Amino acid sequence: MTPTSDAQTRVRRASGKQRHDRAELDAVLDAAQVAHVAVVDDRQPYVLPMAAVRDGDRLLLHGSTGSRLMRRLAEGAPTCATVTVLDGLVVARSAFESSMHYRSAMVFGVARPVDDPVEALDRLTDGLLPGRVAEVRASTRRELAATSILALPLERWSVKVSDGPPEDDERDLDGPAWAGVIPIETSYGAPKPAPDLRDGIEVPASVRALAGPTTP
Amino acid sequence: MTPTSDAQTRVRRASGKQRHDRAELDAVLDAAQVAHVAVVDDRQPYVLPMAAVRDGDRLLLHGSTGSRLMRRLAEGAPTCATVTVLDGLVVARSAFESSMHYRSAMVFGVARPVDDPVEALDRLTDGLLPGRVAEVRASTRRELAATSILALPLERWSVKVSDGPPEDDERDLDGPAWAGVIPIETSYGAPKPAPDLRDGIEVPASVRALAGPTTP
Repeated sequence: MTPTSDAQTRVRRASGKQRHDRAELDAVLDAAQVAHVAVVDDRQPYVLPMAAVRDGDRLLLHGSTGSRLMRRLAEGAPTCATVTVLDGLVVARSAFESSMHYRSAMVFGVARPVDDPVEALDRLTDGLLPGRVAEVRASTRRELAATSILALPLERWSVKVSDGPPEDDERDLDGPAWAGVIPIETSYGAPKPAPDLRDGIEVPASVRALAGPTTP
Repeated sequence: MTPTSDAQTRVRRASGKQRHDRAELDAVLDAAQVAHVAVVDDRQPYVLPMAAVRDGDRLLLHGSTGSRLMRRLAEGAPTCATVTVLDGLVVARSAFESSMHYRSAMVFGVARPVDDPVEALDRLTDGLLPGRVAEVRASTRRELAATSILALPLERWSVKVSDGPPEDDERDLDGPAWAGVIPIETSYGAPKPAPDLRDGIEVPASVRALAGPTTP
């Protein structure tokens, strides 16, 4: 699958930041847990944060069953799901050239309810916390009926990556101002057990692998 | 200013997560650097990541001058700007009840070009890196003309916060599965000087205050 080159996915500005490889799309989607998903209802756009996990050639999106906006989406309203990872502040020698390091993917299309809810919920669960599916009981029929997972195919998309040094005006290079990048780092902290956790239940392998050291 | 209670801003689902205080809106907006902004063009919605800084009762949004979608916004297309901070993974005893800790604000309205570009660019610059304005030269007329900052009034909005423990089905409480929360933490790392930085220019106060220790 390659990005289409129509007006919708062509990046008109900052074309040096555009990426065309499918592997770059996957890398951005796999680096985040949340997508911002557009729904238009009666001409008013809404942007909903939704749990998002890539599953091969589709992006799984998890929302609330029964919400009006989820129904609009599931009915076939055209959408855009955007995933952004913020990597740093670019501190240039002028306010004008200061910017950000980021990786961002926009996926366009129609998000439809999955026809394999068991598999999709497993993929979503393990996508957010690898190995978790094997540690919990199977979902009940009632739970599956109350779970709304939509799948957006990775067909039309656009990826932009900003990762270079500050691009200052040449006349500023001899000036007194500092320039550089302040990285932004995201990490998992020590897991906090639920208040009602029974004694003797150890932190499971999935959580140990993802999180920092347990708080004493 | 209070949130309106019409269909647009009423949170129909998960109403226990909704917040109504303006201070909670400000706290969410001030905790993030990026908003995801909707633009509808020819029925296709787009979700654009944009630098976002709150300035009193407005949200300043910084985009690319000359882009078609920014023009659509500036012309008065109704928009929604969503700011989300992800605070943790909620690991419940079942896949179904597993979720996330987050703070999310949706702001609805029309984003118009600011009529005070100097002040708005200063506010945006200092909003992302406090104290930076005093360290750089003033912007030139040409730079200001090439800067597109839109302001979205904080009038219609909705805030949701999810910060509780896992809410497991009572029948799962005696089971063998662990439950808890894995915090997600975001921090600034050590600043990296630009490759073309002249010798003898120290890391400035603004960067020192925000970032971690300088890399040697």
